[in-house]
Amino acid sequence: MQITRRDLGRFALATAAGSALSPAQEHKLGFCIVGLGRISMQHFMPALQMSTKARLVALVSGHRDKAAKEAQKYGVPASNIYSYDNYDRIADNKEIEAVYIALPNSMHAEYSIRAARAGKHVLSEKPMATSVRDSEEMIAACRKANRKLMIAYRCQFEPLNLRAIRMIRDGKLGKIQAIESANGFDIKPNEWRLDGKLAGGGPLMDVGIYSLNACRYLTGEEPGQIKADASVIDHDGRFNEVEENLSWTMKFPSGIVASCNTTYGCSMPGFYRVHGNKGMIHMEPAFSYQGIRLTAKIDGEPPIDDASPDKDPVQFLREADHMADCVRENREPKPNGEEGLKDMKIMMEIYKSCGRR
Amino acid sequence: MQITRRDLGRFALATAAGSALSPAQEHKLGFCIVGLGRISMQHFMPALQMSTKARLVALVSGHRDKAAKEAQKYGVPASNIYSYDNYDRIADNKEIEAVYIALPNSMHAEYSIRAARAGKHVLSEKPMATSVRDSEEMIAACRKANRKLMIAYRCQFEPLNLRAIRMIRDGKLGKIQAIESANGFDIKPNEWRLDGKLAGGGPLMDVGIYSLNACRYLTGEEPGQIKADASVIDHDGRFNEVEENLSWTMKFPSGIVASCNTTYGCSMPGFYRVHGNKGMIHMEPAFSYQGIRLTAKIDGEPPIDDASPDKDPVQFLREADHMADCVRENREPKPNGEEGLKDMKIMMEIYKSCGRR
Repeated sequence: MQITRRDLGRFALATAAGSALSPAQEHKLGFCIVGLGRISMQHFMPALQMSTKARLVALVSGHRDKAAKEAQKYGVPASNIYSYDNYDRIADNKEIEAVYIALPNSMHAEYSIRAARAGKHVLSEKPMATSVRDSEEMIAACRKANRKLMIAYRCQFEPLNLRAIRMIRDGKLGKIQAIESANGFDIKPNEWRLDGKLAGGGPLMDVGIYSLNACRYLTGEEPGQIKADASVIDHDGRFNEVEENLSWTMKFPSGIVASCNTTYGCSMPGFYRVHGNKGMIHMEPAFSYQGIRLTAKIDGEPPIDDASPDKDPVQFLREADHMADCVRENREPKPNGEEGLKDMKIMMEIYKSCGRR
Repeated sequence: MQITRRDLGRFALATAAGSALSPAQEHKLGFCIVGLGRISMQHFMPALQMSTKARLVALVSGHRDKAAKEAQKYGVPASNIYSYDNYDRIADNKEIEAVYIALPNSMHAEYSIRAARAGKHVLSEKPMATSVRDSEEMIAACRKANRKLMIAYRCQFEPLNLRAIRMIRDGKLGKIQAIESANGFDIKPNEWRLDGKLAGGGPLMDVGIYSLNACRYLTGEEPGQIKADASVIDHDGRFNEVEENLSWTMKFPSGIVASCNTTYGCSMPGFYRVHGNKGMIHMEPAFSYQGIRLTAKIDGEPPIDDASPDKDPVQFLREADHMADCVRENREPKPNGEEGLKDMKIMMEIYKSCGRR
């Protein structure tokens, strides 16, 4: 999880090159971080430090001390530290152009909507919300305020995942028939992720969503039929409100079938296999912060075994930069609210199929 | 697929040791091969040649020339070649003690039942039949005739699959939470496997059954809930009668969930992953005739990476020997008719779930 000297050198070069850009291009999108959890502190904020397009300008936290410490670390003035009580006052702060919502899932909608109303662009962590209705309200609020809404699907910026998509679209694998995917981990007790109200669901919402999203970006299709089984094995207090294990199948309009697993009950390496009649891609790790590895066997071609040299938090850097590009160029972000809404609707179908809704 | 000199040496030794056995132990179970397809000619008959417990004594085939050639190769007298017309006359041949049924799936039941009525023990290839009713009639016929009925689930004799089961039962993986498995291949046109009446189903019946059977022997449980999606993508004449792709989930009484894929539309390496809260087993190839490989990560132990040195047709040798042991010792074969029936019932549930029954 360390930034190497080489990475720093690379980004220093990028910054140096940036000084030749026009003033508009030189402007860095000012981000306000909403929620100081692991993903903000260990990934997104360090990524902003590396960015030539975005920068950290403000923090929102319920813990003043923690916020003050982080603010000092990143050179954020104390006047740009907000609490959840005075959150709406970000409207008055011109430095804040966008918010990064890294709160428990069920709070994404409210804080995204309030940000949009305050005139800020929104980058929300996945899942975008915990219900279809909340997701739709986020989209409507951002549209009404004429602000961008992006969902932080970092794998959609990851070069080997993009390469897998390109190989499939280019027909390298022939006709795709089937996909296997899994993603899970052994969760510690007392996490907000185990609180039904805050999380909205279990491993599906949190990590299974990577498999789901991958099946959609790999096929370029939306599943028509969805079936699922969920279970709780460990009656140790962790799974009173959310599922522990979930297996599901999806059938896409072209006939591609997918079978997926997710869990909070044990380690489950994130992977996918895409089978076509001319070859197969195996991606593993497929969804990690770094170390993504693509292996492929294509008929009549030498085997592919490619590991990404990217170090964490480069995936977050790409997200932040894309958001900045979209704001600057007035473009729709690529994983936008509609993209998040599609996953949300499918997850609700999955929960319905296994009787958890 | 070659028997090495080393293998031959090993089996020569076993045979030499065998000469010290009692007459009862020296007796080799006389097998009649019913159906001269790939599996008989390339695997089971060569396996019998290696066996110290079973031997090839007769053949049944619709192709007299082919049968004569094979008979000569294996030293089977011409008088021991039968056709499907005079099949019931095997009753009069004392040398024939057991039949190996390697016909298209839908014929397993009829030829097993006729063999039992002729007083012969039955080893039938999987799937044991193409319906629950046929399976039950096979079981009843063998029981009535007081003959053994074994189903040729060769992976249940494969040492690394057995080791996986043992590791799980010994608690090495902790509490099992989830399994992923897949198995499939790109089928050539005009195979009997594509004929709905002969095959009874598509890849599920033929190769998906390995994943299904593995999920059952790995968990030691019977699935309570089963859901599936099937599809046909290639409208090239191959899949007019059977499914091309099938994904399914199973939920076991303990809560273990499994997601599985099978296909006839493309290559799909046979594998399974078993996830427990103390470790994971990845078996791949899991179901091949040789080259089985087990990798495992167990908490606090060095990683396991073990490839089987077994060469084809050793898995078939083990099957034949087990059948011989069961007949000699009057024991119930381990994968018996009831075992085959369980898979049959589950496969019918799977087909029902995806609307193909």
